[in-house]
Amino acid sequence: MKLESLSALLNEQLQDLYSLEQQIIEALPKMIEKANSSQLKAGLSEHLQQTKGQLSRLDRIFDQIPDVKRNGQTCKGMEGIIKEGEAIVKAKGDPEVRDAGIISAAQRVEHYEIASYGCARTYAQLLGHDQWAKLLQQTLEEEKQADQKLNHLAERVNVEAKVA
Amino acid sequence: MKLESLSALLNEQLQDLYSLEQQIIEALPKMIEKANSSQLKAGLSEHLQQTKGQLSRLDRIFDQIPDVKRNGQTCKGMEGIIKEGEAIVKAKGDPEVRDAGIISAAQRVEHYEIASYGCARTYAQLLGHDQWAKLLQQTLEEEKQADQKLNHLAERVNVEAKVA
Repeated sequence: MKLESLSALLNEQLQDLYSLEQQIIEALPKMIEKANSSQLKAGLSEHLQQTKGQLSRLDRIFDQIPDVKRNGQTCKGMEGIIKEGEAIVKAKGDPEVRDAGIISAAQRVEHYEIASYGCARTYAQLLGHDQWAKLLQQTLEEEKQADQKLNHLAERVNVEAKVA
Repeated sequence: MKLESLSALLNEQLQDLYSLEQQIIEALPKMIEKANSSQLKAGLSEHLQQTKGQLSRLDRIFDQIPDVKRNGQTCKGMEGIIKEGEAIVKAKGDPEVRDAGIISAAQRVEHYEIASYGCARTYAQLLGHDQWAKLLQQTLEEEKQADQKLNHLAERVNVEAKVA
């Protein structure tokens, strides 16, 4: 990795975001399939559609930087987070408890994205890429809302897990 | 992994937290060494001390559950996040840009911890482990504050990186 400028750092992080969104799009169907609560299934399915839209926003940015490969690297952070999530999805035991675990895995994903989009949005602003900053901010807001929705879902799911 | 009860899920997540704090204690000195800004060095050093206190809080919880190994598993999520951070620490280029990258890596760590401590705190509350919930809440508050401090540091560091 070579970080000669803030612009180079932004390019690195955009590649990272592109990779992490692709990883999430691959991982979510397995979580949806294994979710027991119909509300959790619906919430994760909605987020899968939203994630595809977030990847499209990144495509719009990459279209303007043809010398930077959108598939240039693997986000190792998300790779680790998804490995953890897969262990929960595959866990034996009670379906309500697994649902609580799936929510906790999804919240780790959301928070990692909140940190990542927040930094990239700030660099884009500083570098005067106003349109990119706006696109990144839109996704950032969606991720914060997704985390809040998971908090609400957890209120019911955790109580069901407790009495399981 | 077997998730028969919310208590089993909490134990899993406590082991995860124990592992991630140990990984952070190992990783921070390399970030501190490579940081260029004296304020960033000081901020990360302060957080290293705080992290050791956070591990001690987990020790107090594990002392009450002797049948659960504190070193029972590796947090794969944090493993991936730290791998990414190491790539930034080792990156060639401009020291101010690397500082901006180090802050972004540290914020990913903080956000992952915010999600993880938030879930464990909620399970502890639901299960009536009030003292554990209090200890986990204390660390959660520290992580949120650490993220805010990094935001303030970034305001200056990012501008220096821009003119690098």
